[in-house]
Amino acid sequence: MDENMGKDKPLILVTNDDGYQAKGIRSLIEAMKGLGEIIVFAPDIHRSGMSSAISTSHPLRARVYHHEEGLTAYSCNGTPVDCVKLALNEFLPRNPDLLVSGINHGSNAGISVIYSGTMGAAIEGCIFEVPSIGFSLCDFSSDADFRVAGSLARRLAAEVLMKGLPRGVCLNVNVPSGEIKGVRMTTQTEGKWVNEYQRSKDGSGRDVFWMTGNFENWQADNQDNDEWALANGYAAVVPVKIDLTAYDFLPELKTWNL
Amino acid sequence: MDENMGKDKPLILVTNDDGYQAKGIRSLIEAMKGLGEIIVFAPDIHRSGMSSAISTSHPLRARVYHHEEGLTAYSCNGTPVDCVKLALNEFLPRNPDLLVSGINHGSNAGISVIYSGTMGAAIEGCIFEVPSIGFSLCDFSSDADFRVAGSLARRLAAEVLMKGLPRGVCLNVNVPSGEIKGVRMTTQTEGKWVNEYQRSKDGSGRDVFWMTGNFENWQADNQDNDEWALANGYAAVVPVKIDLTAYDFLPELKTWNL
Repeated sequence: MDENMGKDKPLILVTNDDGYQAKGIRSLIEAMKGLGEIIVFAPDIHRSGMSSAISTSHPLRARVYHHEEGLTAYSCNGTPVDCVKLALNEFLPRNPDLLVSGINHGSNAGISVIYSGTMGAAIEGCIFEVPSIGFSLCDFSSDADFRVAGSLARRLAAEVLMKGLPRGVCLNVNVPSGEIKGVRMTTQTEGKWVNEYQRSKDGSGRDVFWMTGNFENWQADNQDNDEWALANGYAAVVPVKIDLTAYDFLPELKTWNL
Repeated sequence: MDENMGKDKPLILVTNDDGYQAKGIRSLIEAMKGLGEIIVFAPDIHRSGMSSAISTSHPLRARVYHHEEGLTAYSCNGTPVDCVKLALNEFLPRNPDLLVSGINHGSNAGISVIYSGTMGAAIEGCIFEVPSIGFSLCDFSSDADFRVAGSLARRLAAEVLMKGLPRGVCLNVNVPSGEIKGVRMTTQTEGKWVNEYQRSKDGSGRDVFWMTGNFENWQADNQDNDEWALANGYAAVVPVKIDLTAYDFLPELKTWNL
């Protein structure tokens, strides 16, 4: 890799969890053009719902699948976090100035941030002290229209390149499908997925369980959360921490006698 | 499943990420005996480093591999989080009173909480509003001595059964190998893994990358964190949040004009 890469221009790492061929990442790459030197490092296949999973029992491989002036794109046989780790440890000339992940096909609002490979990648960038943003569009279809989300991704990426993000904080951005009324800086909605399995039979008549389900919103009456924003036509930006310590509970926990 | 199960006694769900045959989960099951009715729902093979990953593209299966009075044990072809979700959605008669995960073979202190399948399972229990604890022993060997960790697991499980945990908070417990000086209620150490890949060649001479690495502690001079506790012979208990919102940064973020 060119030793001078990114010395003059910002260096931008692009990844996702839907795989390098997804329309969402192609839209995100287009949205980043002109903001800096772009390196893409994305899973070779669809690896949704991988959270911050890492591959410890098989080796990783990467190959260049596209190169043009200012853009080099790799695919990798790892999870989204593997892609970020391998890119930052072995392939990039220096820590990038920005990591963008997505644009995911489907929402990662509310508790879904926990399961999201898109956000796993953004959280990993944040662990590496790279300003990092995950983008998701609330439309699962493979040919969804990413124009509004792409335009917001570009504005937000430019803002983060200028202002940075606090250490230990990355952004989870969800965009409703269609036109948006604006952008809300907000919080992760409390709730959980329910009715998560469809029971079925395999060819031998044995029970198998397919994941399905729907999100149960426990804060439907609260207007300052990401699900409210999305339901009301706004893009939702939630700042996400990598320090999971529940500081509020620590004083009480310290009184426990073990 | 017996409809009366757990109506009189506490119902305890046991899981892990090293698989149902691991010594660590067998030690944890032994440690829970007498505290309540025990259901084990654990991965059929080693699924370390799976974080909160879920399986969306293949169906789940579960089978009973052991049954005795007060204890029913299932293995499942899913991730740790799949095991918890499937158990709670489809197999348990009601929400359990406690979820314990582990005892993991190896530390999940510091940033490793993010990648840990052991903690993925505990976090999932917490999402279901079940008081949940992940246990890890700082010894990777398959025949590690789990007696000290098991004894602490029993004491802490009994305490949590009595006192509960706040909504949205679970516990990440790491135990050093050997005897311990005591238990510290503490915080997640800041730091990251470095030197994460060993480059090697496959049979065709192509580059492959195997995960390796070591934890770089960014708070080595701070005594109130889990890495300090472990290095000084204490078990470390960190309360972990499932709301990842960085509330501290939100007021500033709201001033951004997009």
